[in-house]
Amino acid sequence: MTKFSDFANTLQASDIAELLALTEKPEVISFAGGLPAPELFPIEEMKQVDQAIYEKEGRQAVQYGTTEGDVPLREEIAKRMKKSFFVDCEPKDIVVTTGSQQALFILSQILVNKDETIAMESPSYMGAIMAFDPVRPKYIEVPTDDKGIVPEELDAILAKDDSVRMIYVIPEFQNPTGITWPVERRKAFMDVINKYDVVVVEDDPYGEIRYDIEKLPSLKSMDTQGKVVFLGSFSKIFMPGLRLGWTIANPEIIDKFVKFKQAVDLGTSTFGQRQAAYYCQMFDMDAHIKEINALYAKRRDLMCESMKKYFPKECTFTYPQGGLFTWVTLPKELDAKELMPKCLEKDVAYVPGGIFYPNGGNGNHFRLNYSNMPEDRIVEGIKRLGEVLTEALAK
Amino acid sequence: MTKFSDFANTLQASDIAELLALTEKPEVISFAGGLPAPELFPIEEMKQVDQAIYEKEGRQAVQYGTTEGDVPLREEIAKRMKKSFFVDCEPKDIVVTTGSQQALFILSQILVNKDETIAMESPSYMGAIMAFDPVRPKYIEVPTDDKGIVPEELDAILAKDDSVRMIYVIPEFQNPTGITWPVERRKAFMDVINKYDVVVVEDDPYGEIRYDIEKLPSLKSMDTQGKVVFLGSFSKIFMPGLRLGWTIANPEIIDKFVKFKQAVDLGTSTFGQRQAAYYCQMFDMDAHIKEINALYAKRRDLMCESMKKYFPKECTFTYPQGGLFTWVTLPKELDAKELMPKCLEKDVAYVPGGIFYPNGGNGNHFRLNYSNMPEDRIVEGIKRLGEVLTEALAK
Repeated sequence: MTKFSDFANTLQASDIAELLALTEKPEVISFAGGLPAPELFPIEEMKQVDQAIYEKEGRQAVQYGTTEGDVPLREEIAKRMKKSFFVDCEPKDIVVTTGSQQALFILSQILVNKDETIAMESPSYMGAIMAFDPVRPKYIEVPTDDKGIVPEELDAILAKDDSVRMIYVIPEFQNPTGITWPVERRKAFMDVINKYDVVVVEDDPYGEIRYDIEKLPSLKSMDTQGKVVFLGSFSKIFMPGLRLGWTIANPEIIDKFVKFKQAVDLGTSTFGQRQAAYYCQMFDMDAHIKEINALYAKRRDLMCESMKKYFPKECTFTYPQGGLFTWVTLPKELDAKELMPKCLEKDVAYVPGGIFYPNGGNGNHFRLNYSNMPEDRIVEGIKRLGEVLTEALAK
Repeated sequence: MTKFSDFANTLQASDIAELLALTEKPEVISFAGGLPAPELFPIEEMKQVDQAIYEKEGRQAVQYGTTEGDVPLREEIAKRMKKSFFVDCEPKDIVVTTGSQQALFILSQILVNKDETIAMESPSYMGAIMAFDPVRPKYIEVPTDDKGIVPEELDAILAKDDSVRMIYVIPEFQNPTGITWPVERRKAFMDVINKYDVVVVEDDPYGEIRYDIEKLPSLKSMDTQGKVVFLGSFSKIFMPGLRLGWTIANPEIIDKFVKFKQAVDLGTSTFGQRQAAYYCQMFDMDAHIKEINALYAKRRDLMCESMKKYFPKECTFTYPQGGLFTWVTLPKELDAKELMPKCLEKDVAYVPGGIFYPNGGNGNHFRLNYSNMPEDRIVEGIKRLGEVLTEALAK
């Protein structure tokens, strides 16, 4: 019997993990993951990209690099930040990370002590909760409506609880709900956080995956006090397997972040970083994102129309204007986790909503992903889910 | 002023880091880093490798992968483990990591609590100390002679201190000393650790980089109780920029390790993993390693001959039979860190030895890398170092 650390002892097998493992069988129509549509990965272009890297950079492209990341890639990121997120920044403000998952992990490690508090939307991204858990923080779920975190509620929490070190938010096409904060809500949020000594982590992996809504200013673009840390990702606009994300923060945070990242993995793949940088230089990333958005908008529409058609009227869902997910709310008496085995019998799957709440409860929700399944499987899968829900409500 | 976690507050600017930053100027003959010789990176072969990946695997090669890692790569690793390290293992026993740096970080997190103890050779790899620091452990430096850790000393420590959770060792071509443990020493070490409830982390990034010594059985190959965790790396035998390492451990540790890695970065680059797997399948890795070893042996000889010629007789050094480093010991009255500015004036650099001792002291050593500099610069650099040392001793 190996002796583990106290935190490692909390890492137990979970029934949810076992259920989710079952969703990975090929016959299952899975709306569970958060996978992009592979058919749009620019493989033909990548053949040219890789050859260009070997030709132009040769061996330097695969030598150890800096912890902060490849400068040309950070220059490309700075351009995207300006154009898509209205943020002025320079390479020195940016660290390239091994996916934005790594940024979530590192930020909680450098900003939060055990038993200090992380505030977040309710519900929020389960992968972030998993990234934060190792510091063993307390979680406060801030009341959240269909426009995002409610600023007055956040204000009340921060006024009475000075243990809040970090506020984690996904203002655009939130994971899991698909909700986007309107500009007015963003402004009100910034007014609140500017009164307190707290860091905001703005996670925005989906900001460029938008269908029928104009670009909105990011929280970071409204940040006059250096309190917002912005996280971006190449996973949804490019290819997730390369594990490339980025973090933008004030110089103090960047300094600690880089020192911590050095301990964690020395640096992110130098070749992978060049793959992203060269692709941006050689091809039209904006045109590529447009293609993604056209496909996903079609799938979102199809999923929402199918839910309207096949789901019992008592079940509601969000109509996301971007991102990868819609969020289904069931009548209170139903529990999405309990319905999972019935769904798996019919070879269809979602993520039960309870795990998106760090403090538990809220079993009557589930998250659906529409980006990864082809159109015919979306319709068929929603039809099967509709049967399970109809049957459950009839009991 | 951002509020940081207690650990982050310990991450201060260091004078050593500032000195080492200066070694990166192109005019400096730097023996400081641990960089492989880039001229041997198989770039021409990689052009074929990347094309084959896109042709054969297409888009799956850049989709999200599993946290454990690509199965074909783990199969290749299992073959190398058998052939080079005499370890029988299967893909399920192996996790692919984002460099072995990541494995060091995760292992300390899952095995050690704050104020518990990590024992290690004295001196030991500074990057490992950096990886372990976030758990805020105590460090015990186990007395170490020219054959490695002294088993009797380790036994005495373990008998009286039950807070030791992890023993970190580099039995082959140790970083920084270049020392290799003979078989008898390895056996005696295993006899000691088998009496105690402790995990051994055997870090072996250099095991295949060997010149004039036959292959020796790894500690893992002698491990009858599942107590040894073996860490391997593609950084020295292939290309460090891909950030690929591996961890082999008992099923209990693998389970916690994978769950923790998921929190840290979800998984290592799927494309990078295929680059290594395809290279192993398409080309002759053993022949490639032979080329590396021939070059490094020449450089090691040249560095040692040059030290013999140019260094004052009072300065001694190790003659490593593999790996990338030799370790220089100065007369007690000299301090390698204090001599650094004088060396940098002459555009030559090493790593001062003090930072390889987790509890400080031992200023009269420095580490030299011979793999990364071409032959003419090795001779010239050692000559300049000799001048600094001669002058310092004359005072």
